[in-house]
Amino acid sequence: MADTTNDNDIGSAMYELAGELFPICRSLTGYGVRSTLKRISLDLPGLRICEVPSGTSAFDWVVPPEWNIRDAYVLDPDGKKIIDFHVCNLHVVGYSVPVDTVLSLEELMPRLHSLPDQPDAIPYLTSYYKEDWGFCLSENQRSSLSPGQYRVRIDSTLENGHLTYGELLIPGESEEEIFVSTYVCHPSMANNELSGPVVTTYLAKWLLGLEKRRYSYRIVFIPETIGSIVYLSSNFEVMKERVVAGFNVTCVGDDRAYSFLPSRNGGTLADRVALHVLGHGVKEFVRYSYLDRGSDERQYCSPHVDLPVVSVMRSKYHVYPEYHTSKDDMSLISPAGLSGAYRVLRLCIECLERNEILDVLTKCEPQMGRRGLYPALSTKESTSTMAAMMDILAYADGTKDLIDLANIISRPMWTLLELINELKKHGLLKATCIERET
Amino acid sequence: MADTTNDNDIGSAMYELAGELFPICRSLTGYGVRSTLKRISLDLPGLRICEVPSGTSAFDWVVPPEWNIRDAYVLDPDGKKIIDFHVCNLHVVGYSVPVDTVLSLEELMPRLHSLPDQPDAIPYLTSYYKEDWGFCLSENQRSSLSPGQYRVRIDSTLENGHLTYGELLIPGESEEEIFVSTYVCHPSMANNELSGPVVTTYLAKWLLGLEKRRYSYRIVFIPETIGSIVYLSSNFEVMKERVVAGFNVTCVGDDRAYSFLPSRNGGTLADRVALHVLGHGVKEFVRYSYLDRGSDERQYCSPHVDLPVVSVMRSKYHVYPEYHTSKDDMSLISPAGLSGAYRVLRLCIECLERNEILDVLTKCEPQMGRRGLYPALSTKESTSTMAAMMDILAYADGTKDLIDLANIISRPMWTLLELINELKKHGLLKATCIERET
Amino acid sequence: MADTTNDNDIGSAMYELAGELFPICRSLTGYGVRSTLKRISLDLPGLRICEVPSGTSAFDWVVPPEWNIRDAYVLDPDGKKIIDFHVCNLHVVGYSVPVDTVLSLEELMPRLHSLPDQPDAIPYLTSYYKEDWGFCLSENQRSSLSPGQYRVRIDSTLENGHLTYGELLIPGESEEEIFVSTYVCHPSMANNELSGPVVTTYLAKWLLGLEKRRYSYRIVFIPETIGSIVYLSSNFEVMKERVVAGFNVTCVGDDRAYSFLPSRNGGTLADRVALHVLGHGVKEFVRYSYLDRGSDERQYCSPHVDLPVVSVMRSKYHVYPEYHTSKDDMSLISPAGLSGAYRVLRLCIECLERNEILDVLTKCEPQMGRRGLYPALSTKESTSTMAAMMDILAYADGTKDLIDLANIISRPMWTLLELINELKKHGLLKATCIERET
Repeated sequence: MADTTNDNDIGSAMYELAGELFPICRSLTGYGVRSTLKRISLDLPGLRICEVPSGTSAFDWVVPPEWNIRDAYVLDPDGKKIIDFHVCNLHVVGYSVPVDTVLSLEELMPRLHSLPDQPDAIPYLTSYYKEDWGFCLSENQRSSLSPGQYRVRIDSTLENGHLTYGELLIPGESEEEIFVSTYVCHPSMANNELSGPVVTTYLAKWLLGLEKRRYSYRIVFIPETIGSIVYLSSNFEVMKERVVAGFNVTCVGDDRAYSFLPSRNGGTLADRVALHVLGHGVKEFVRYSYLDRGSDERQYCSPHVDLPVVSVMRSKYHVYPEYHTSKDDMSLISPAGLSGAYRVLRLCIECLERNEILDVLTKCEPQMGRRGLYPALSTKESTSTMAAMMDILAYADGTKDLIDLANIISRPMWTLLELINELKKHGLLKATCIERET
Repeated sequence: MADTTNDNDIGSAMYELAGELFPICRSLTGYGVRSTLKRISLDLPGLRICEVPSGTSAFDWVVPPEWNIRDAYVLDPDGKKIIDFHVCNLHVVGYSVPVDTVLSLEELMPRLHSLPDQPDAIPYLTSYYKEDWGFCLSENQRSSLSPGQYRVRIDSTLENGHLTYGELLIPGESEEEIFVSTYVCHPSMANNELSGPVVTTYLAKWLLGLEKRRYSYRIVFIPETIGSIVYLSSNFEVMKERVVAGFNVTCVGDDRAYSFLPSRNGGTLADRVALHVLGHGVKEFVRYSYLDRGSDERQYCSPHVDLPVVSVMRSKYHVYPEYHTSKDDMSLISPAGLSGAYRVLRLCIECLERNEILDVLTKCEPQMGRRGLYPALSTKESTSTMAAMMDILAYADGTKDLIDLANIISRPMWTLLELINELKKHGLLKATCIERET
Repeated sequence: MADTTNDNDIGSAMYELAGELFPICRSLTGYGVRSTLKRISLDLPGLRICEVPSGTSAFDWVVPPEWNIRDAYVLDPDGKKIIDFHVCNLHVVGYSVPVDTVLSLEELMPRLHSLPDQPDAIPYLTSYYKEDWGFCLSENQRSSLSPGQYRVRIDSTLENGHLTYGELLIPGESEEEIFVSTYVCHPSMANNELSGPVVTTYLAKWLLGLEKRRYSYRIVFIPETIGSIVYLSSNFEVMKERVVAGFNVTCVGDDRAYSFLPSRNGGTLADRVALHVLGHGVKEFVRYSYLDRGSDERQYCSPHVDLPVVSVMRSKYHVYPEYHTSKDDMSLISPAGLSGAYRVLRLCIECLERNEILDVLTKCEPQMGRRGLYPALSTKESTSTMAAMMDILAYADGTKDLIDLANIISRPMWTLLELINELKKHGLLKATCIERET
């Protein structure tokens, strides 16, 4: 389990994929999303790319017009191109309507956005649901602008079209599903959010490569918020019926921290497995509250939706200083950062695949000796493995699953699998029924 | 809510009322109680003054004879009046039988009560249920008495009569009731207990002035212990059916502390609202256990009665040094002390009036922008109000009342009312049903 | 209750009995167990000595052959008897098969067991379920052995026979039982384990001497592990039906600590009474987890057996340095050590005998004064007893037993019995029903 010999290779491959996708200007809708999904489908041929028309209703929302942009720039009074969309796509406020005009510096200023506290960073802004336009630039650049007339051009379209997302359904032995969601609507930023799509791509590749899967997998690459709402509006009933655990994959690229954000009420199978894996699989992690939420768990865990979805992250959105600026670039993430997140998420899935309620098959301790499971000569020393074996037999009473048992005896679940197989082989232990969150 | 612009005025008015009532010699029964209730009914015209005959049974108790006193004094061997009931009514042990005799100092001594540890304070003592008589005086005075013959006179009556209490029922939209109880059986002491009756009087005045009330109110001014037992013996069934929360109003006059004493098993609506209001409405408060009980919650929370009654106090009985002595006088309480308690108790009631279980009306987050509830331009900053609004929508799932929600998001409930109205107005939130303690 | 005036006498008597039993070479089976039980039956004439044939099945186990030993020694190359079973019976690995041979030192070495970290202690080893033989000796002695030929002799038998245990059933008013288990399979070691049998013997003597017992008692003296498994295999159904609390009596002889090991899931009546008695009856105690288990609770609390059995110990097995060595001798235990454990276990039983759910018989506080239970003159002082009485009346609501009530008011249960009798006598309190663990 969790054979990580090729983690370095996978880390590099994920980093390379992120680099390929980085320059694309993604947004809620449009060709940036489509070309991102097309690139991902090279790795995941089964990825179904779905188009939902503008104007489609989804719960309280309506799919917005499709936005595309070809070019955008600002020329200074001397005709010098001082802001250029092709240099950095964060320069344009997302969903900016087309503009072609000349303005005085005074008129231009309210259209310019910068971060006084981070004077050399370009902020990331959008105006999805109110028609507007604007440019983002560094505070340093903004304060260097001279009075005069500025030529401003945004060559964009905002028209009826589609919202695009990708969906990959991987069948398993059971109809019960593990749900994985990530988003593909951010322009050139790396941790938030190319790390999510690339780690999800490689998790899916690994799942597809497995000989057998207990669970089925539902994996989506969507635009944030409207995408998860649109997806839920079509799939909620079946997901509520089938999903036993879910992961919102975001901010999984840097190497500074591990973080956990629980489901709304906590305590679901997803919460339990993630806390077990983080508790035993990494040196330390930051444990957030659902009050700190800020990604698609806002939809997946909303009242009356309440899917068992958690976020296992590296440095969490909102928290790290480069968040939502041009500083969240390829230098912020790393092969090691990506592969660490990949390893933890894969371990969560491996634990879920193997988790089961266990029950002993005899009253009183079994006689280990006659099965060759116990040293015939009782000495003061007993090996750690023997202790774990006896502890499992002491607690496996048909009410506790393997995650519970591993927590009770303070050992990583993945170190117990072999001895549990051994105990089953000797007729001492059985799985009673697959746990189902209700 | 909790418009406290005239708190100073109310504080002064309450202090003035306490001053008026202070000289009256109250006891379990008798004209002191009657004249106190008569004065209160000037402020509360609807106050019903009830008389229960001596000898009436009430659970394990019997209403005692009525006690009245006109005069009492001790003359020293020189004929000098050294103890005078008209100077301080604490000088006479409450319920003392009539006496008119001459005693040697030696014979007198066992009838005299003082506090060696508080040598200049006159203690407050009673002998309600055993016929007895005695005088209380300061330790300083007691130790200065010279040998000789003392003339002793207590001009009291202890005869069949009535126990008197006041009851005010204020109707509301619902038959469900909030219960407020205070006691009117203490002679000239201020914090314990004129503060309770005056604060209760002004809470009742405020309630009567409200345009509408969701709850009905049951407010009683009774003698402690026997009064609450007598009242419960007639009203228990209806109170058990109707009372959703209750407050025992005592020791609410000084300015040194806020205190909380829970119901017997804790966790009732009264406990929850009082802890929320004290937790968010005052700088700090002392949290007692029900083991520290000592007032009428002893009856209201007794086994099989178990009404949801708590005490929200300033300095608690038993705890402050002036308790049950002549030092608990008008200088111990203050307009600020009284109005602080009034404010907190009124806030408890206001929170109860507005408390309700909330539920969202859509799956997933609603689209705030198209309702003008969300800034169309998403920036790194979001206002605190917006955050509270989104948090309410994230947690209001039909199982949590507003007190729960306010606790979850760590904000005073009263700061959320406006935004909740806003959310309801926009069809995003509804109240599901009025919470009922069971 | 717990009249301990003769604790010193009982301590000495127990220590004397331990001294008598110490030289006997006990094992899982054989004449050592029989003569131990015979000696105990001098104190407990009703003790039934039961024989279970070798080969009998018991859950996953089979009763092993009976082992007896007459002599065993090692002669060094000079013919000197350097290891002698009659000097210390720990020298022979328990259940060693017969041997009579000559070996070189090199051949002998693997048959010798010592403790490098405790160079002057002889370890205690057994090989119950794999036919084997060996000697135990001190590391000092082992390292002093010179090359040469060693004569080795073990004059033992390992043949079909019986497993022997003792059972004492003491009837009470109820069929519900308190279960006490201890083990008689250890050769010459004192804390683990002669302390258990001698303390159990004296607890049984005391129980037999009682005029009446509410509960019936099931007391067993068995070999560890196989004995409890054999006993459970015949008695499980009736024990599951009847046993309300049980104690595994082991390591109750030294004077260094008190310890507690809970039942598997905790919270049973046995856990509750033991924690109450240890919490109020000794200065401090070590609280172990069921993960630290190691005696017959492994069987009694195993999944689907789950009897309410705990261990109240002095220094726990595995933990003290002399454990399972020749250093666990008569100097390690003491009359005071034994009588301390006896006192605590007896107090547990006394509390169980008196425990009951209590309920008040009136609504509101009763009028204590007219019953002579309350000082008629109310002063600032109230006695501690009065406070306890009022607290009991305030909390006894038909849902809490006396252990709960004592815990709530932070007083030892045994200090409340008299006042509870008083309250019952006055018709203020009644027992509702005998608590039954389910």
